Order: sequence, then structure tokens, then C-alpha cells
Amino acid sequence: MDSKIKVADRIIIGIDPGTNLMGYGILGIKGKKPSLIAMGVIDLHKLGDHYTRLGRIYERVSMLVDQYCPDEMAIEAPFFGKNVQSMLKLGRAQGVAMAAALSRQVPITEYEPRKIKQAITGNGAASKEQVKEMLRRILDISDENLLPQLDATDALGAALCHYYETNRPIPSKGASSWKEYIARNPGKVSGL
Amino acid sequence: MDSKIKVADRIIIGIDPGTNLMGYGILGIKGKKPSLIAMGVIDLHKLGDHYTRLGRIYERVSMLVDQYCPDEMAIEAPFFGKNVQSMLKLGRAQGVAMAAALSRQVPITEYEPRKIKQAITGNGAASKEQVKEMLRRILDISDENLLPQLDATDALGAALCHYYETNRPIPSKGASSWKEYIARNPGKVSGL
Repeated sequence: MDSKIKVADRIIIGIDPGTNLMGYGILGIKGKKPSLIAMGVIDLHKLGDHYTRLGRIYERVSMLVDQYCPDEMAIEAPFFGKNVQSMLKLGRAQGVAMAAALSRQVPITEYEPRKIKQAITGNGAASKEQVKEMLRRILDISDENLLPQLDATDALGAALCHYYETNRPIPSKGASSWKEYIARNPGKVSGL
Repeated sequence: MDSKIKVADRIIIGIDPGTNLMGYGILGIKGKKPSLIAMGVIDLHKLGDHYTRLGRIYERVSMLVDQYCPDEMAIEAPFFGKNVQSMLKLGRAQGVAMAAALSRQVPITEYEPRKIKQAITGNGAASKEQVKEMLRRILDISDENLLPQLDATDALGAALCHYYETNRPIPSKGASSWKEYIARNPGKVSGL
């Protein structure tokens, strides 16, 4: 599928970072048509040591950025978690993935899982399977190219969500809701 | 002070990562004598954007690692925090600093603030000022070389703590207490 890279006007890498599995999806935009370039999962289960896992995430995200030269990175980032311990671990996984993008001047935008589900399926409470099925339809992905791992489809969902968000008639600049957009741009909205 | 780098047998970089200020301290060991090579603070206050701050941490830690070629990195890492939001932010700051070390094959060890205070002052509940004063004495730092910022002395404390931890008669491999060391090495301790 590498030939698609050369004809894409814009490439977005989506990342779903975790300390056990890290999903990624590379989306190519040609004109106004988004399509799948690549998707995958980095399995960190076998790497016992916490630092080895973090090092692997950094290494693999760096390789993906060097290979696909994305214009932007979209990260699925929950804003709330179970406890402070899990959030610290998640923050570290996000941090090393972000370092790989930042060191290569790739701008990052993060999206809450709910926001991604809303953008892809129209329902913020959709299941991961529903997100996957909608991605298959929207991007017309063949069965052999659609990875079953939901971390990979989540990451691809983040990339497609970012494309939708940045391609609206009025760019939202990452605002997570209409209410937030109004708050940020008081002069642009009248009659409220 | 750069001339010291060449005569040190071992160099340890200590990092106190935060999203507002990041402290660092470079410790050189010659024989069994630790001494200050450099210390400093990276001020992130003026950088408004969260990603710009993370990018700056990555960039500056990378520069420090390239400049001083440390053999190890010691990080001051609180295991508990106020809330999940602050822990996620802290995790990200730690993550990008770690990525700079991991991408250059520098092994990382983390220490709780309490552990560092204990190692430097003998009191786990010591104040940051007490840690600073003990570092001044132990490392024989002149007034002009001792930075007043407590983030810098905290980072230097992490480096010295790591030196003490790894230079014990029985290496503790980062165990944070004697109890933990016994738990990890049941065969090595008798008569309990």
C-alpha cells in the first residue's frame, strides 16, 4: 500500500497509546477522499520492563513518522482514568509517543475517546466494534486489510476524526464542542 | 566545569521533570568521590502551549545527554499525586524526558522524593532547603555554582541518591527500602 503515500495530499498518523498495546493508523487524504495507508498494533506484553516498553513505543513511533512522513498526529487521549497510578503510566506512554512526533516537528492534536466515537459513528457512546465497522465502510477497507485489533481501529478512528475536525467549513482548531468553539471565538458567532 | 567530564569515571544525570519547571543536575564520579559537573533549570512558564513545553523538555534533555554523555539517568518521580489530571501531565513530562534517555540507550532509575531526601539528609521528611544545604556540603559546591532553584537541587539530589543506591556493598537495584530488598532477594538475607 506504500504507493498511496506518494499520491496523498496530506497524511495523518493516528495513535492509541497504551502500556500494553499501542495502536496506530495512517490515513492518506487525496482531494477530499480519506483512505487507509497502513494500520497496526505494537504488542508490548512480552517486554517485561516498563522502560523497555516506553523505549519500544518511542522507537516504533519514530520509525512510523520517518517512514510515512505524516503532516499531523492525532492521539486518542482519555482525560479521566481509574486512578493516579494508571494515569501516570498512560501519561508516560503518551509522552514518549509525543516525543517522537515533536522531535520531528509533527504537530499533535488529542481527542477524547467519546469525541472520536461521535465523529465516526454519530454516537459518542458507540462501541469499539461499531467504530471499526464504520471505518471499514467509510474508508472502504477490504477484509484482508482491516486488522481485527481494536487498538488499531481506535487509532485509525483518531486520524479520521482529526481529518473531519480540521476539514469543517469553520475550522474548529481542536475545539471539542460547539459550546467550546463559541467560547473561544466570541466574535465569530452572532445571534446567541 | 566541562573539564571534569573527561576525568570522571562515571556520569549520572538527575532529572526533576515538571510541566512548569524542569531541573537537572549532572554528577561526576571519580574514584569514590562524587562532584558537581553542572546543574540548571529549564523554565517552561513562558511557553504557553502544552506540546511546545513537552517538545522543549525533549529537546533540552537530548542536548544534555549529548553534551555530557551520562552513563545513567536518575529521575525524581512521585508515585502519588493530587489528581488524575496532574498525574497525566506529569507522566507526559516524565515520558518525553525518558524518551531522550531511552533513544540514546541511557538506563533510567526512578526514585520517590522521600527516598531521595532520606538518602541525602537521613530524613525522608526533610525540606527541599535541607536537601540543598546537604548537597552543598557533600559535594563541596561553592556559592557561585550552587543554583538557588530547588528544582535544580532536587534533580542533583536524585543523581546523588542513585550513586549511593548503586554503590552499596550489596547493590539494591533500585529497591526503595530494605524491606523491599529482602522481598526481592529472599535467599540473600539470613537470620530474619
